Amino acid sequence: MSRRRQIYEGKAKILYEGPEPGTLIQYFKDDATAFNAQKKGTINGKGVINNRISEHVFTRLSHIGIPTHFIRRLNMREQLVRQVEIIPLEVVVRNVAAGSISKRLGIEEGEPLPHTLIEYYFKDDALNDPMVAEEHIACFGWASNEEMQDMSSMAIRINDFMSGMFSAIGIRLIDFKLEFGRIWDGDYSRVILADEISPDGCRLWDMTSGEKLDKDRFRRDLGGEEEAYQEVARRLGLLQEDGG
Amino acid sequence: MSRRRQIYEGKAKILYEGPEPGTLIQYFKDDATAFNAQKKGTINGKGVINNRISEHVFTRLSHIGIPTHFIRRLNMREQLVRQVEIIPLEVVVRNVAAGSISKRLGIEEGEPLPHTLIEYYFKDDALNDPMVAEEHIACFGWASNEEMQDMSSMAIRINDFMSGMFSAIGIRLIDFKLEFGRIWDGDYSRVILADEISPDGCRLWDMTSGEKLDKDRFRRDLGGEEEAYQEVARRLGLLQEDGG
Ligand SMILES: Nc1ncnc2c1ncn2[C@@H]1O[C@H](COP(=O)(O)OP(=O)(O)O)[C@@H](O)[C@H]1O
Ligand SMILES: Nc1ncnc2c1ncn2[C@@H]1O[C@H](COP(=O)(O)OP(=O)(O)O)[C@@H](O)[C@H]1O
Ligand SMILES: [Mg+2]
Ligand SMILES: [Mg+2]
Repeated sequence: MSRRRQIYEGKAKILYEGPEPGTLIQYFKDDATAFNAQKKGTINGKGVINNRISEHVFTRLSHIGIPTHFIRRLNMREQLVRQVEIIPLEVVVRNVAAGSISKRLGIEEGEPLPHTLIEYYFKDDALNDPMVAEEHIACFGWASNEEMQDMSSMAIRINDFMSGMFSAIGIRLIDFKLEFGRIWDGDYSRVILADEISPDGCRLWDMTSGEKLDKDRFRRDLGGEEEAYQEVARRLGLLQEDGG
Repeated sequence: MSRRRQIYEGKAKILYEGPEPGTLIQYFKDDATAFNAQKKGTINGKGVINNRISEHVFTRLSHIGIPTHFIRRLNMREQLVRQVEIIPLEVVVRNVAAGSISKRLGIEEGEPLPHTLIEYYFKDDALNDPMVAEEHIACFGWASNEEMQDMSSMAIRINDFMSGMFSAIGIRLIDFKLEFGRIWDGDYSRVILADEISPDGCRLWDMTSGEKLDKDRFRRDLGGEEEAYQEVARRLGLLQEDGG
């Protein structure tokens, strides 16, 4: 087996050169970090589950017409994706106050927001991913107005779809994070959904017990993170299948 | 002299009930605070100077058609203003990176921004005036879309006017903070400029020496804050006049 070229190692995934130009392999690690990697740990089996959940969600999203980087899952921990030029923003969609917004704006966790809120964070570990407004994004040219329009309308549609999907399995979608990237076609580019969608970047609360089924179990030392991730995969009907 | 009713005591000013309904008296103190009042002190004569500078700037702004709360100066430390319903936002206009944006986004102080940037901060001392985006403002109803439109276009005009005014006296307008308020006319309201414009809420750098002529002298323990405030008033031609 020839050694693949590693492009990037991040906090949760490794990117390798893909088999064809314009493709990459996303390898999902078990590494977990929080608070911009000030807290580090491992969630056993997380990589396998997130690879599977992300495949599932991206596939379903493509069925409603959301363009994504996902091509196909290769094995338990790897998926083939289209290489994009990542837009350096974390697009956060919030339905219910939790985490940083509760702290920042003094809203009790669990309080539904008056309406769905989109926030943007500048993806820069050294700066601690500061929240930014559209004014900053325009000022520093991180995304064009058209790209902002595309990302926000996709984010809203993704929220509607995922709210429905999770509600059907007894899970409340509190908030989640998206990343988008550009693909170029000559001089033109368009924006597609990239990175991953998994309990690492979503807040998922059981509808009846309120139990957290997401990375907050790790962030807040609640324990049972492996079981929580598995429970999400199980309810999505992904556990019976063979992974590799 | 009958004792006036105090409406509010803030960090830099006291508001008293005005002589007529719908008016207030703004009393300018010498108190200086920084970092959300974690640092406290006094700048001798600041209240007198800020009262005078704010009168001057608000008067000039009204001449170019910016509606303001300013009615007239009453004495050395007091001015009569229209009472407004304060919109709980600090509207910050930035031409050059300095202060919080330099820290937040890792831009060296003094670097001109690609273009003028407007930022909004939720005015809430208990929360430390967190930066917010238009999405938060809409979500929590702090200002309507129309009000945002009015405030941002006034902010841009005020920036142009003040950049010109200060440049004429050898001062570079780095950034400044505005507050706006609503006045009601039956069921309708409109937005006018309120609070103050003074070296307390502006960054003003001497064009040749780069010397700071604003509250950063206090924030950063540079000394000479009284002289700096006086220098701004002097260059604006306000020192020869009798204050009371
Ligand atoms: N299709 C793609 N093309 C290029 N880069 C991508 C793609 N999808 C995701 N990425 C980037 O790859 C990295 C994934 O690894 P991750 O561990 O999440 O990194 P990080 O610690 O930077 O969040 C992220 O930086 C993400 O922005
Ligand atoms: N025209 C006005 N009507 C009502 N309130 C005003 C008006 N202009 C300013 N204010 C408010 O009065 C207070 C002025 O005092 P200040 O010391 O600046 O207070 P703070 O510590 O809250 O900033 C501010 O809270 C400001 O929002
Ligand atoms: Mg990541
Ligand atoms: Mg104030």
